[in-house]
Amino acid sequence: MTQSTELPPALPEGGLRVVALGGIGEVGRNMTVFEHAGRLLVVDCGVLFPEDDQPGVDLILPDFRAIEDRLDDIDAIVLTHGHEDHIGAVPFLLKLRPDVPVVGSRFTLALLAAKCKEHRQNPRLVEVREGQRQPFGPFELEFFAVNHSIPDALAVAIRTPAGLVLHTGDIKLDQLPLDGRLTDLAGFSRLGDEGVDLFLVDSTNAEVPGFVVPEREIGPVLENVIRKADQRVIVACFASHVHRVQQVLDVAVQYQRKVAFVGRSMVRNMGIASELGFLNVPDGLFVDLDEAMRMQEDEVLFVSTGSQGEPLSALSRMARGEHRQISIREGDTVILASSLIPGNENAVFNVVNGLAKLGATVVHQGNAKVHVSGHSPAGELLFLYNAVRPSNVMPVHGEWRHLRANAALAVATGVAEDHVVIAEDGVVVDLVDGKAAVSGRVVVGHVYVDGLSVGDVGESTLSDRLVLGEGGFISISVAIDTATGRAVAPPTISGRGFSDDPKALEGVVPLVEMELARTEAEGITDTHRVAQAVRRVVGRWVAETYRRRPMIVPTVIPV
Amino acid sequence: MTQSTELPPALPEGGLRVVALGGIGEVGRNMTVFEHAGRLLVVDCGVLFPEDDQPGVDLILPDFRAIEDRLDDIDAIVLTHGHEDHIGAVPFLLKLRPDVPVVGSRFTLALLAAKCKEHRQNPRLVEVREGQRQPFGPFELEFFAVNHSIPDALAVAIRTPAGLVLHTGDIKLDQLPLDGRLTDLAGFSRLGDEGVDLFLVDSTNAEVPGFVVPEREIGPVLENVIRKADQRVIVACFASHVHRVQQVLDVAVQYQRKVAFVGRSMVRNMGIASELGFLNVPDGLFVDLDEAMRMQEDEVLFVSTGSQGEPLSALSRMARGEHRQISIREGDTVILASSLIPGNENAVFNVVNGLAKLGATVVHQGNAKVHVSGHSPAGELLFLYNAVRPSNVMPVHGEWRHLRANAALAVATGVAEDHVVIAEDGVVVDLVDGKAAVSGRVVVGHVYVDGLSVGDVGESTLSDRLVLGEGGFISISVAIDTATGRAVAPPTISGRGFSDDPKALEGVVPLVEMELARTEAEGITDTHRVAQAVRRVVGRWVAETYRRRPMIVPTVIPV
Repeated sequence: MTQSTELPPALPEGGLRVVALGGIGEVGRNMTVFEHAGRLLVVDCGVLFPEDDQPGVDLILPDFRAIEDRLDDIDAIVLTHGHEDHIGAVPFLLKLRPDVPVVGSRFTLALLAAKCKEHRQNPRLVEVREGQRQPFGPFELEFFAVNHSIPDALAVAIRTPAGLVLHTGDIKLDQLPLDGRLTDLAGFSRLGDEGVDLFLVDSTNAEVPGFVVPEREIGPVLENVIRKADQRVIVACFASHVHRVQQVLDVAVQYQRKVAFVGRSMVRNMGIASELGFLNVPDGLFVDLDEAMRMQEDEVLFVSTGSQGEPLSALSRMARGEHRQISIREGDTVILASSLIPGNENAVFNVVNGLAKLGATVVHQGNAKVHVSGHSPAGELLFLYNAVRPSNVMPVHGEWRHLRANAALAVATGVAEDHVVIAEDGVVVDLVDGKAAVSGRVVVGHVYVDGLSVGDVGESTLSDRLVLGEGGFISISVAIDTATGRAVAPPTISGRGFSDDPKALEGVVPLVEMELARTEAEGITDTHRVAQAVRRVVGRWVAETYRRRPMIVPTVIPV
Repeated sequence: MTQSTELPPALPEGGLRVVALGGIGEVGRNMTVFEHAGRLLVVDCGVLFPEDDQPGVDLILPDFRAIEDRLDDIDAIVLTHGHEDHIGAVPFLLKLRPDVPVVGSRFTLALLAAKCKEHRQNPRLVEVREGQRQPFGPFELEFFAVNHSIPDALAVAIRTPAGLVLHTGDIKLDQLPLDGRLTDLAGFSRLGDEGVDLFLVDSTNAEVPGFVVPEREIGPVLENVIRKADQRVIVACFASHVHRVQQVLDVAVQYQRKVAFVGRSMVRNMGIASELGFLNVPDGLFVDLDEAMRMQEDEVLFVSTGSQGEPLSALSRMARGEHRQISIREGDTVILASSLIPGNENAVFNVVNGLAKLGATVVHQGNAKVHVSGHSPAGELLFLYNAVRPSNVMPVHGEWRHLRANAALAVATGVAEDHVVIAEDGVVVDLVDGKAAVSGRVVVGHVYVDGLSVGDVGESTLSDRLVLGEGGFISISVAIDTATGRAVAPPTISGRGFSDDPKALEGVVPLVEMELARTEAEGITDTHRVAQAVRRVVGRWVAETYRRRPMIVPTVIPV
């Protein structure tokens, strides 16, 4: 588990190199690059959603710098499933090389195609399915059915002369999946018999003991809640969770409610899912929102986005009483059939409180079993390790706490401790002669998307935003005569985000004037030096007077 | 459960009025004011810690405006226990009226006294204990032992001619408390026999089914972890959780480890607790930090603050490798024996990940039973309702979701639905002729403490901070000749928190210059109008070019 900060040496001939450009040491923006014989294979290319210390950022992309000079060497982008943290950054990579084949299952590619259409891209899609084997350059791929919180997920085995690699993607072992499509543990065992040289394993739930409850146990809980409802029912969940929605639809049918989808991504994804046969919908079940609003309250059920408290989502608008069509009334039932992603708690509970205040009965993960995770906890990971019996293990998809926990599980099943490689983003792992080891490190930073541009918002901008967000700023504008250094007008001083009191800054004006008199007396005409002097005076005054740290922004105009 | 936005009428003679100035509709800054016969009684006076949408704020106080003209009518401030959300704002109230008696148990008052000393206040303290009855003005108070996550907590009964009120404070029903001091359910039953007219009940855990696990079950879990540790052990928990710390000390004694406290509030509170006999410490157990650093790694245990991931705390510094004395090594053990307060998840998991990356084994609520809550869940609340059999109920201490859940529990035990009053902050509830009902509403806003000043940071400042924190700002400074409207120098344009690209704003310069030429040509000399014109041009350009919304800050200096 050593770490190097050096660039790796050339990959020994016949070896396989693995580098994550995102997704290890964090949950999101999964992207792993495999290299063999001068060619590259990319597995997943997702986005990460920003946290509190990345304000104003829309998305975070994997860092493509390590491969930007080698884009032509990429033989394929393989997508394990259709979640945003696995496919969301594909359009940004396709912008750099539009013709690279994008490989995935039917549902995954359908979601990707919809996304690419929004970016006005027309990618080369290569549909594959479980059981299939297909070469891309020197990489012989084999796909395995995997159960997760989205249909049609795949694990991928990668055969090269360097050895056999198995990448789980996101995985769990629900033994009673709604669609009957089990994770192919038998296939993994067969690979194990062949000999898996490197096993990349989903770490997300490695800290959680035990096993996941089957998805189908959510159905009876939903039924129990919806049965008792005599007014409107609104169910919020992830827009890609087809099996969750399926169970909602089944209960709706049972209680003679029509269903309306609310929220752009829900409407789009469920359209795709039902068109492709992943969602089983009786004729006439769906109504549009306008029609739903004209129906009796106990004859309709809404399936909505917004389960993570996103402020602009339909559900948040309802909770604030601002939704254009749906207003919550005392006695309505709202079910958040979803996880609570760490960091979203305040947003989600704001929504729950808003709904409760309006009189709705709110059912959520905290008071009913309306969600199960899509990732294998520790008990299931042990099954995976014992099926695969890998020579080397590399935990992926997780923060450090998850990676450590996953590594410990691998060791517990008999993997040699020095064959478990914890390699966060950018750490280069080479598989040579059957042994995986860290050989170096490439630079992997955060690539921020903010509005229309990618990459111009960086650490310096974010650090300024954090300062401004905590304390606002005080600006002081001065025009000086560059010949004499004399201020040609009184300084203009104002603050934003500093105080509601219009007189808050009055006390500093004479100090600034005195300082300007001093710089003039000393014959200082350099605008930069005058600005520094003003900044110092104002900064000291505000620290002493208020014990706060706003940004101090002096502007000295030479006239 | 109706709400009024009108000021309440005068309180009918012989009635009792109840208004929360904080703590209902939120978790924190608990403060309830009782009024009878022209006199006031305050129960608790705590602070609330800010959330994401209140950036830069240090503390939030209850809003004293409703009583600021009646400070002389206050007969006492009663403190149910010593947590910050119950005592933290007392110094701010004492500033307005220093001589009001502050009533509480021994430990509560000791913590308050330490706090007041920091504010250079010397309050009039009146120590009481369970079983005691004492009048303050027309309010005949009786105190009851209550079990919570801090020692020496009290519930308070308030007798006036209007009726008998019981306020639980924060409460749980641990039946095997570490100090043997049970919540006085028998006393509550006796009050119930007498007839409780209004019951104010802690709602914090009303959504959670069942019962809390006894605090003493944490001990064996800690023991199990610490037994296996052969290097340093660091336990983080709340600085006021004396019983949690007691169990840590007991395990330390068992495994021959000395104990060092880390963090100012931990050192202070545990000093008070051991001095007053609430913490049982064998002679020679404590060592100071310097001494601890000289000892063998397996001979010492640190008890630290920072269990909520506070960035400046000792534990956060250790996780970042920035603590002056303690550096975490591979194989160290860190236990977060604490709750995870919603909203703190990112901060806490950042600490856990930092520690995991450094190689520590991190034990926390998510992977071991190292915390139990201090608040009664639903099962225990039912016991309380059935013991007290109140005529009227008012859920307190909670967000809307908690209040609704608590109200439902009251109704389930037989309290008439129209005798359960959900009254958030500012809602006035009058108990008249044995019936509690909403009679109006007073204004209760958020009172922010930021640095040295109270109240000057308000909604407008916070809303500016949110804008600045999301998008930064672009400032444009122009000096114009007030006679002609001519710009006497090229405009100065710069951004902070907008882009890392130094050329990001180049494109707008010619547009601003064109606009200034236009305003000059139109003879506009008014600085405000010029500023507006500049703001419009820059705002439109940035929205079109970047699809972002920085604050646009034009300054026009007349020369």
